[in-house]
Amino acid sequence: MTPEAVKARDAADPLRPLRDRFLLPDDLLYFDGNSLGPLPKATIAAQREAVASQWGAELVGAWNKSDWIGAPRRIGARIAALIGAKPHEVIVADSTSVNLFKLLVAAAALSDRPVLLSEAGNFHTDLHIASGAADLLGLRLEIVERPALEGRIGGDTNLLLLTHVHYRTAERFDMAAVTARARDAGARTIWDLSHSAGAVPLDLAGDKVELAIGCGYKYLNGGPGAPAFLYVAESLHDRLISPLRGWLGHRAPFDFVDDYIPATGIDRFLAGTPPILSLLALESGVAAFEGVDMGALWAKSVALFDLFFDLAEASCAGHGLECISPRDPMRRGSHIAFRHPHAFALCQALIESGVIGDFRAPDAIRFGLTPLYLGFEDVWRAVDTMREILETGRWREPRFARRGRVT
Amino acid sequence: MTPEAVKARDAADPLRPLRDRFLLPDDLLYFDGNSLGPLPKATIAAQREAVASQWGAELVGAWNKSDWIGAPRRIGARIAALIGAKPHEVIVADSTSVNLFKLLVAAAALSDRPVLLSEAGNFHTDLHIASGAADLLGLRLEIVERPALEGRIGGDTNLLLLTHVHYRTAERFDMAAVTARARDAGARTIWDLSHSAGAVPLDLAGDKVELAIGCGYKYLNGGPGAPAFLYVAESLHDRLISPLRGWLGHRAPFDFVDDYIPATGIDRFLAGTPPILSLLALESGVAAFEGVDMGALWAKSVALFDLFFDLAEASCAGHGLECISPRDPMRRGSHIAFRHPHAFALCQALIESGVIGDFRAPDAIRFGLTPLYLGFEDVWRAVDTMREILETGRWREPRFARRGRVT
Repeated sequence: MTPEAVKARDAADPLRPLRDRFLLPDDLLYFDGNSLGPLPKATIAAQREAVASQWGAELVGAWNKSDWIGAPRRIGARIAALIGAKPHEVIVADSTSVNLFKLLVAAAALSDRPVLLSEAGNFHTDLHIASGAADLLGLRLEIVERPALEGRIGGDTNLLLLTHVHYRTAERFDMAAVTARARDAGARTIWDLSHSAGAVPLDLAGDKVELAIGCGYKYLNGGPGAPAFLYVAESLHDRLISPLRGWLGHRAPFDFVDDYIPATGIDRFLAGTPPILSLLALESGVAAFEGVDMGALWAKSVALFDLFFDLAEASCAGHGLECISPRDPMRRGSHIAFRHPHAFALCQALIESGVIGDFRAPDAIRFGLTPLYLGFEDVWRAVDTMREILETGRWREPRFARRGRVT
Repeated sequence: MTPEAVKARDAADPLRPLRDRFLLPDDLLYFDGNSLGPLPKATIAAQREAVASQWGAELVGAWNKSDWIGAPRRIGARIAALIGAKPHEVIVADSTSVNLFKLLVAAAALSDRPVLLSEAGNFHTDLHIASGAADLLGLRLEIVERPALEGRIGGDTNLLLLTHVHYRTAERFDMAAVTARARDAGARTIWDLSHSAGAVPLDLAGDKVELAIGCGYKYLNGGPGAPAFLYVAESLHDRLISPLRGWLGHRAPFDFVDDYIPATGIDRFLAGTPPILSLLALESGVAAFEGVDMGALWAKSVALFDLFFDLAEASCAGHGLECISPRDPMRRGSHIAFRHPHAFALCQALIESGVIGDFRAPDAIRFGLTPLYLGFEDVWRAVDTMREILETGRWREPRFARRGRVT
């Protein structure tokens, strides 16, 4: 595959114009949109408007005039369209961690079974939040390796907590099958969609998913620490009570009454006042998907993966680089990950050369394949840079060595 | 008091130049900074920088390059300086509601006493959050009227939860005395400083306060739904475990380990990834206090209150307006509240005339007295407008009648 051939593929790509929706520095190849999505151009004007025209000019009146009060539902409805949910089944609030806590505690109360089940190596905040919820509720958190996971689901399982696409390897669960397996055993499943939403095709309704949470700042391009989303199937809306009974989840927040009465529907999962500036940036991020066919997006992700894999296999595998992401597209998400004994140094050398991927302990390097703004030439150049770094051994230079805190 | 006399007071006011730090629409008198502080001018450029130069240009690298990762502590330290705490005793995270939940659950675990005590008519989100925590912990939430409150503190009291300055009436507790009263009975106190921080002089260390939370978007001018702050006295840092064990509260968030080990110090009260754009707006808001003497600010608040009270007493009291805020400055916060049988309609008529106060159910109208940007002429004009509306009975016009949701 020559540089000319990849340029031709970009030229023929019907999704190529979407790249213009984003501000991408000229000197970078950004393969970290699965960690922090880049800035959509429309967000710049929208944030200026939110700050100067809404907050600055309308002041407290903007809660109504600019419908800040409706933003959590409004943005939730847009995300719902990307994940195969009904508009009123998704709301934006708090962080992924906090939303997970709400769903764990609320859903566990529907059963008297003692076990909360999750996967070893799941994104650690999920396991930590689960341990906090389990301690509070007197449940037992069991963390098992993936191969033993489905076999472990049994009559004592209250909730199964899984991340749909693994943050490190990109391995993807069969959402419908695992949800059904748990349901057959009388257990409910909470899905973390942080590495799925905006990336892989999702059909929460079709897959009979009841509970899910997800991140706003990765593939949804909502900006650093964007508020997260939360999905509850309509059938459960009135059966769940959030443990975080903030005023905006009250049926009548502006009646100022002492007694807590949860709002009807998904609103009851709001807690305190949401961070409006960050929330509106998320709205612009989600708007960058306007008119985009998720199937076409996924097909391009698959093509980017295949090109990355083939080029890396041809030019880097001899240098100890081993792909740890599944080759079968149905079994993976939208990034490609490699194991390398010096993954940290390799990642640092790549960053210095303008190829932004990231390191995940202990030995993985990840590249986000985000078809809204990445093309085939980008992949070619990234792999070629990695080839050069591996061939020359440039990653051995002392300044790339690991020390201190790593984000 | 003539318009000329109040203009002279403004001209002689050494704090008057601080008004230039804020963007205030020319056609409004903004007396709602106790609900949503106005836009500091410096925030406009800071947000543009955060969006375009940090997120846009540095992308994920901004977590280190622009020290997003240090923002919760950095801003916490600035707030600490305003409330009489040590820099490492305050951190910014989540919402007031969520932070309250963390402290309630973490602190209740230090005692086996069964009662969580709070005040009837406390800001309702505090009572709702407390009810959620009490249900989870098997504690009994007792909500008593203020006159019976101190007498109720006893050997069964685990935690006392109070709001320092009341959101409706502006009544202020004697923080040192009440904290000591609870401590003498073996109970801990959590103070909600939402209507205190940035308004009344605070000395958490001197008053021997152990636990507090507060709001970022009122007197701290952090923008709509700004993240909240949380204070834990150093002596308790290692004894409290947050029930919301998000990854940023972990000792080594980037080691990606399954087991939860809380960070040392105040960091353990972080949960998920914070909403950076809103967080940085809060930083600009707090920076608007740079070089401001809190004692001088409070003295001006007292003077604004006295003028508002005297003018309203002289011109509005005959029309059924009754001040419900304490006259003694030591017993109140930085707003003035009135009862009126038609407070909602009166408030709407004032807003239409460009005087922005707010209504609080069932019958109160509030005016925030925010000496950073309000002056004596503002007070004179606001009361004169209210006098005109009351004298003419203009508030009776049908468009001011209450209907539907009120924010």
